[in-house]
Amino acid sequence: MSKLLIDLLKINSVSGNESPMTDFLIEYIWKRKDHWKVQPEVYFGEDFHDCLLLKFGKPTGAVFSHIDTIGFSTRYENQLIPIGGPEIEQGTRLIGHDSLGPISCKIILNDDFAFHDFPRAIDRGTLLSFEQSITIDDEFIQAAYLDNRLGIYNCLKLCEELENGWVAFSTYEEHGGGSVPYLLRFINENAPIKFALISDITWVTEGVQHHNGVAISLRDKFIPRKKFLEKILSLAEESGIPYQLEVEGSGGSDGREIQFSPYPIDWCFIGAPEDNVHTPQEKVSLKDLQNMVDLYKYLMKRL
Amino acid sequence: MSKLLIDLLKINSVSGNESPMTDFLIEYIWKRKDHWKVQPEVYFGEDFHDCLLLKFGKPTGAVFSHIDTIGFSTRYENQLIPIGGPEIEQGTRLIGHDSLGPISCKIILNDDFAFHDFPRAIDRGTLLSFEQSITIDDEFIQAAYLDNRLGIYNCLKLCEELENGWVAFSTYEEHGGGSVPYLLRFINENAPIKFALISDITWVTEGVQHHNGVAISLRDKFIPRKKFLEKILSLAEESGIPYQLEVEGSGGSDGREIQFSPYPIDWCFIGAPEDNVHTPQEKVSLKDLQNMVDLYKYLMKRL
Amino acid sequence: MSKLLIDLLKINSVSGNESPMTDFLIEYIWKRKDHWKVQPEVYFGEDFHDCLLLKFGKPTGAVFSHIDTIGFSTRYENQLIPIGGPEIEQGTRLIGHDSLGPISCKIILNDDFAFHDFPRAIDRGTLLSFEQSITIDDEFIQAAYLDNRLGIYNCLKLCEELENGWVAFSTYEEHGGGSVPYLLRFINENAPIKFALISDITWVTEGVQHHNGVAISLRDKFIPRKKFLEKILSLAEESGIPYQLEVEGSGGSDGREIQFSPYPIDWCFIGAPEDNVHTPQEKVSLKDLQNMVDLYKYLMKRL
Repeated sequence: MSKLLIDLLKINSVSGNESPMTDFLIEYIWKRKDHWKVQPEVYFGEDFHDCLLLKFGKPTGAVFSHIDTIGFSTRYENQLIPIGGPEIEQGTRLIGHDSLGPISCKIILNDDFAFHDFPRAIDRGTLLSFEQSITIDDEFIQAAYLDNRLGIYNCLKLCEELENGWVAFSTYEEHGGGSVPYLLRFINENAPIKFALISDITWVTEGVQHHNGVAISLRDKFIPRKKFLEKILSLAEESGIPYQLEVEGSGGSDGREIQFSPYPIDWCFIGAPEDNVHTPQEKVSLKDLQNMVDLYKYLMKRL
Repeated sequence: MSKLLIDLLKINSVSGNESPMTDFLIEYIWKRKDHWKVQPEVYFGEDFHDCLLLKFGKPTGAVFSHIDTIGFSTRYENQLIPIGGPEIEQGTRLIGHDSLGPISCKIILNDDFAFHDFPRAIDRGTLLSFEQSITIDDEFIQAAYLDNRLGIYNCLKLCEELENGWVAFSTYEEHGGGSVPYLLRFINENAPIKFALISDITWVTEGVQHHNGVAISLRDKFIPRKKFLEKILSLAEESGIPYQLEVEGSGGSDGREIQFSPYPIDWCFIGAPEDNVHTPQEKVSLKDLQNMVDLYKYLMKRL
Repeated sequence: MSKLLIDLLKINSVSGNESPMTDFLIEYIWKRKDHWKVQPEVYFGEDFHDCLLLKFGKPTGAVFSHIDTIGFSTRYENQLIPIGGPEIEQGTRLIGHDSLGPISCKIILNDDFAFHDFPRAIDRGTLLSFEQSITIDDEFIQAAYLDNRLGIYNCLKLCEELENGWVAFSTYEEHGGGSVPYLLRFINENAPIKFALISDITWVTEGVQHHNGVAISLRDKFIPRKKFLEKILSLAEESGIPYQLEVEGSGGSDGREIQFSPYPIDWCFIGAPEDNVHTPQEKVSLKDLQNMVDLYKYLMKRL
């Protein structure tokens, strides 16, 4: 497994405090872009909050990858409030940092309320993440936050060969969103797009299994336009890359904010499926991940 | 009853795949507009996805009518997932089409989950609609999808006499929306509006009954501005056209997306009430429908 | 307590019908602005619906204060439907006005449904408010609608000294919002901002108590950006003004619409805490209110 992926998995960037990931990406892109096929324009800084935009060539589409993760806020009297939808299990280890120093503690469940067991009070509003633990074998990677470190990884691999297109690193996706609207406004004013692919990780279910290929989502809580799905499916079929079709009635992604944006932009979620969703033991097939990378490269050349 | 209405009722256009209705409307408008009082500019195509916009004269307002319907997506293992909020009843007949051909099946309920009974697997993500069955007598029309074929019908009747105003055919209304934002942006950049009427069908309740006139909604989940409601009510009273006042605490329409748009646009939902909402047997008084058509013509001249 | 605050508390402006408050503010601002340090540009009228915008100097930020209140709509058969989230208690007195004259009635609860006891039918869709009753002693003010009359009061006190910044009086906040998007669009086209403070009233809880200072909210249902919170906290600390830190998992404000706007604008909710939230007996510490006024003046000079 590449060093890049391991590096990505070690960075904390809970929704609201994504800047450690932004900083990492800026540095990585700076170091690596000379080896990329096309040199992108890179946009970041206070006008983009903690987001990052890369423009390659003459874009007609974009790939969105969220850089935030689920986690917890500390409240009063050792209470924990979720950020996004983490699985809240007795004993899960959390880490963070407040004005008094580093924090490592466990979740204590009491009457369905969550508390931490840190021996001192933690500053109010401190953001805590799952402690990271990465396991890789021949078939699988298992770690916290594969959702959406793998989506970021996919984007960075795509950057190596991308000729035309935006790559957008968004924030707050796990907690209701809010960055996609201003990213889309900037994109629309700079080089408008017709479509967006959502580079994110989905669920293993009775219909979507490990090793069966990258999942193309035909719907989640929201429904992409059939005409666009048909175009994607026809290209996916043509590519020969293993893929599987997902149909869900719930769940959302940055696609939601594209659907409700003031621009007529088609969208589709495409990503490897994971087991143990939103736990510290998210698990993805390495083969599915490779299919994801391959399909994005194929599609972004042809859509 | 007019052939137009029957034609409209026979077209399938579940949210996400409204293009059959768009195609019908384009053809209908093309054939009929020479007989209209004012020739509109007609906007459609990929920049509007499956929506359609007509601009008559110098608009200060718009009428919105959604062209999508509720329905179902097929999932895995014969499961059905709702699109919008259909009533899910044992034995309801559904139709559709996948790669292997036409589909006609029934809903089977099992432990509150919905399945189809089609003898073969249906392609994942296939969109299914209620089978249509139209009954008309002297007083009522009964059919699937009166919501919102009657709203479209109302708009097309309005087009015959409209001198100034936008007519907007929107998509995705039954499933959370998403087209109104880009339609409003286009409208605002082309010929901005101060108000919008929502041409849609509402509910028969203890306060809103068949044959008592078109319903003017004073609120649903959202609340129009009192100043605008007062203007509408004063014109409705002056018109002599039968109407009734609706007050609901839930439900929504394209009015919701106008309320939350970045433009200060007043809105009001005005439509005939129906019984058996979101079933294949929606039922509307023909008299109420005629009152709806008459009131829209009256209001769009004077607002 | 100032006459201004008493005047504000006596005005009815339920969501959807905020114009009485708008009219009061226009008149107040007209009379008083000559005494203000900087003369603002004042924007109102039909292009702003019932909102009001003041631009002081060269703004980089804004303060938002909502001018609507919770209340009730009358439905059929003496039913009441809530507007926003009022506490619905047996016997609470409500007032309003319909075509037949003034209304004063009580809430009757029956099987969890709310009715009024007015001896005649009330016009459908009439807006009712809590009857006002104001009590002030050395420590506390108690009245209906401190949320958000105190937020408005805070803004008007700020106006006396504000040199650079927008002050925005928004509508519909209690009932889902809808005015902030067009206010932000106007602001962005006229004099864009980097940040917004939400001048509103929050809750007394186990962690936020009367007399402990104005509450700075580190999160509610939504999460401001950590970088911006740190700037606020550092200025608050430096100011010497008493404040307390709030951390909630639910609740929202105009900050929500700023978060989801198409502009990269940081936001933070800062306001005195109240007891008996959304009842006719909301209660706030006068000291906390003064701290709120002082902190806004301090921050708006330095952010």
